[in-house]
Amino acid sequence: MNAPTAHQHLSPAVVQRTVPAELIAALQARFGTNCSTAQVIREQHGRDESAFTHVPPPAAVVFAESTQDVSDAVALAARYQVPVIPFGVGSSLEGHLLAVQGGISLDVSRMNQVLHIHAEDLTVTVQPGVTRKQLNEELKSTGLFFPIDPGADASIGGMSATRASGTNAVRYGTMRENVLALEVVTASGEVIRTGTRAKKSAAGYDLTRLFVGSEGTLGVMTEITLRIYPLPEAVSAAICSFPSIEAAVHTTIATIQMGVPIARVELIDGNTIRMVNQYAKLGLAETPMLLMEFHGSPAGVKEQAETVQEIAAEHGGQSFEWATTPEERTRLWTARHNAYFAAIQSKPGCRAISTDTCVPISKLADCLLDSIVEADATGLPYFLVGHVGDGNFHFGYLIDPNNADECATAEDLNHKLVHRALRLGGTCTGEHGIGLHKMDFLRAETGEGAVDMMRTIKRALDPHNIMNPGKIFA
Amino acid sequence: MNAPTAHQHLSPAVVQRTVPAELIAALQARFGTNCSTAQVIREQHGRDESAFTHVPPPAAVVFAESTQDVSDAVALAARYQVPVIPFGVGSSLEGHLLAVQGGISLDVSRMNQVLHIHAEDLTVTVQPGVTRKQLNEELKSTGLFFPIDPGADASIGGMSATRASGTNAVRYGTMRENVLALEVVTASGEVIRTGTRAKKSAAGYDLTRLFVGSEGTLGVMTEITLRIYPLPEAVSAAICSFPSIEAAVHTTIATIQMGVPIARVELIDGNTIRMVNQYAKLGLAETPMLLMEFHGSPAGVKEQAETVQEIAAEHGGQSFEWATTPEERTRLWTARHNAYFAAIQSKPGCRAISTDTCVPISKLADCLLDSIVEADATGLPYFLVGHVGDGNFHFGYLIDPNNADECATAEDLNHKLVHRALRLGGTCTGEHGIGLHKMDFLRAETGEGAVDMMRTIKRALDPHNIMNPGKIFA
Repeated sequence: MNAPTAHQHLSPAVVQRTVPAELIAALQARFGTNCSTAQVIREQHGRDESAFTHVPPPAAVVFAESTQDVSDAVALAARYQVPVIPFGVGSSLEGHLLAVQGGISLDVSRMNQVLHIHAEDLTVTVQPGVTRKQLNEELKSTGLFFPIDPGADASIGGMSATRASGTNAVRYGTMRENVLALEVVTASGEVIRTGTRAKKSAAGYDLTRLFVGSEGTLGVMTEITLRIYPLPEAVSAAICSFPSIEAAVHTTIATIQMGVPIARVELIDGNTIRMVNQYAKLGLAETPMLLMEFHGSPAGVKEQAETVQEIAAEHGGQSFEWATTPEERTRLWTARHNAYFAAIQSKPGCRAISTDTCVPISKLADCLLDSIVEADATGLPYFLVGHVGDGNFHFGYLIDPNNADECATAEDLNHKLVHRALRLGGTCTGEHGIGLHKMDFLRAETGEGAVDMMRTIKRALDPHNIMNPGKIFA
Repeated sequence: MNAPTAHQHLSPAVVQRTVPAELIAALQARFGTNCSTAQVIREQHGRDESAFTHVPPPAAVVFAESTQDVSDAVALAARYQVPVIPFGVGSSLEGHLLAVQGGISLDVSRMNQVLHIHAEDLTVTVQPGVTRKQLNEELKSTGLFFPIDPGADASIGGMSATRASGTNAVRYGTMRENVLALEVVTASGEVIRTGTRAKKSAAGYDLTRLFVGSEGTLGVMTEITLRIYPLPEAVSAAICSFPSIEAAVHTTIATIQMGVPIARVELIDGNTIRMVNQYAKLGLAETPMLLMEFHGSPAGVKEQAETVQEIAAEHGGQSFEWATTPEERTRLWTARHNAYFAAIQSKPGCRAISTDTCVPISKLADCLLDSIVEADATGLPYFLVGHVGDGNFHFGYLIDPNNADECATAEDLNHKLVHRALRLGGTCTGEHGIGLHKMDFLRAETGEGAVDMMRTIKRALDPHNIMNPGKIFA
């Protein structure tokens, strides 16, 4: 047997469904210039930040400006049983935006209004195209903030659809915990509401949480009500180097187990620090490092920091460096923020294939160490960063997308890593979603029964399979 | 038109479906003495803590001792399309356990094993019949605890099924936030798993959260994995009297808005304090009172307490009383623990009809004050307690179940209260569930579209409508 081509690994199965000219005409009649069939616009909407290629772009792109626009576009698509792919800013890492069954892209980026800030209730209601940075900019004057921070400046719609999280999740939770209610356009074009602004509710099925993480396969979110938080009175950041990954991870485990309400605790391995040093001339020790942040009252932050410093010292942590001003904090976090770019630049022309396993924290060291040994043995370069407080970490295997061997190696490493994580009681995806490429992993993780139940729900709520088909399950 | 009878208000519509003798015989063959048709056992399983009456008991009770037992019982019931009503300890307040369409009760109270304590990961896996007090007893030696505390010593299965919460939810969340994963027997008797022990996951639809709060209508939970927490290093409790409900509520609002991580903040109104004073000879000031608890490090608890004491003082709070030892804390909380019993005893032979609205916290004072005026105008006695940090509170209207006028008055007050809460952006139920009696409220709250979606999911996952039929929606 010949070596697989890169094409095989990065090209998902494509089943083009017909998009009748009649539908395009109807969309153009309804949306005018807000419905585009220009090649460049379609291509822009037919890809995302994943490494997948060779999928033809959607047949048209509709730019929605209101819930009514979304409803009308979906109702028209439903009439012709044509796929609809909701599009925010295009930062998916799992191919969510690729038109693997053809259809139209429904771009909600112009629905970018912060609709209501209820500062007194710590809630905010936004349209799906609002990005997280925009939201925090608009919240600035209120003394409140929205903590969920995936790397990209993603849209709140996309973050909700993929159940995103990021570095603050260890303290503030993920989109699962922070989306309170939704307005949704269903697969038939109907507009429904899935909750209220009340902090808790026992009123019927939790439709909000069913939509959060459904990756656009059940409907389109048109309004999202989020929990927001008071900006902490004091913030303190620290970096600390460790003699080994194990020492850094055990420091994290002990911190969590003691109930220290640490806001962020990120791991970078020595190899990634080396890349960052080259990229940004930082001169950091090229050993595993934890980056931490503490939120609270001045006394509370001091107490947390002292506790963690003691724990770190017990595990050989050294050259603790502290920062309390925003500028100093930014400097300390430079390594983390630059890890991806530094890695990409270390191998010109490469793409990063990102893993996303998450394991119970007691298994984190085992899972990481075995996977590092495995990756090192292949010689494939990679970066490694982790939201270690949650047991979630990302290898970014740096592949030449035209090199079939490298693609196969990355694929193989990811496969072994995921199955290791599953054996340890973990999940194949902590925050990126299933998308196109983790369907087999999902079945291995939850079993056929749970996937069948998901499919049954999908069929019931989207009988013509028009909402982002071909994602999560085949 | 004549005045409605009490019977009309408290007796839900009953649609008896046939339970074939063949099924009973098959259950008896499979379960032996663990399948009972004794009148007293059936009657015990045909009621709960709600005020509903006049529903015939289930035709039989099966005592399940394992997942296999549950699976076999459901599969047999499915074959004959006979309703199955999961039963924990019978503490539902909303009629969840009543056999309004006949069928069998599936008692899981003997499935009461704590299966795995993963102290290092802060998770525990239990069978559904484990009660919350039993769980905390078994966790004692680990230095960890499970914080969710509805009044009753409910089963974890029942708490999960109703999305329960209680006094600690303001800090630790509800069952929604604290159930990590489930093993579930579906309506066909199949056993599935809905998640892993990983702290977060983006792997497909959130089946865990779909089942949490589904009130037994989608399947039977047979294993439940929960988040647990380190016992706080320091705990401090306080009570404080206020000149008005408004002052107590505004103290709470300011506390939450400042981000004080208060663990409990409960309101009791002056009228209820009067009942408690009579019942337990406490001699407390008969004005609105907040009961608070602070968890954290010694310094952190001190800091929280000082902040709240300042806020309370600004709102006229007085006679602050503090407790740090467990015994003193118990004494301070006596009023809260005795509120229900004191109220019930204040009117011999009465039953309490409990409301459960929850509103955004900024609307809490409005919602409470108007509802108090309304209740006082009727002369019907009531108690009033509130998980005010979450915007959730309970009136307990004390009715003579044989007095149609009182039933009608309570019904009318509840109706007005719920619609007031909905107008203020709240929910009809913070923690008790919809059950039998809030179906109209659910439709008013979420709209027909969302209820239709719930019904579509129910039909897809339980096509013969055997899982606890007649609850949540008709």
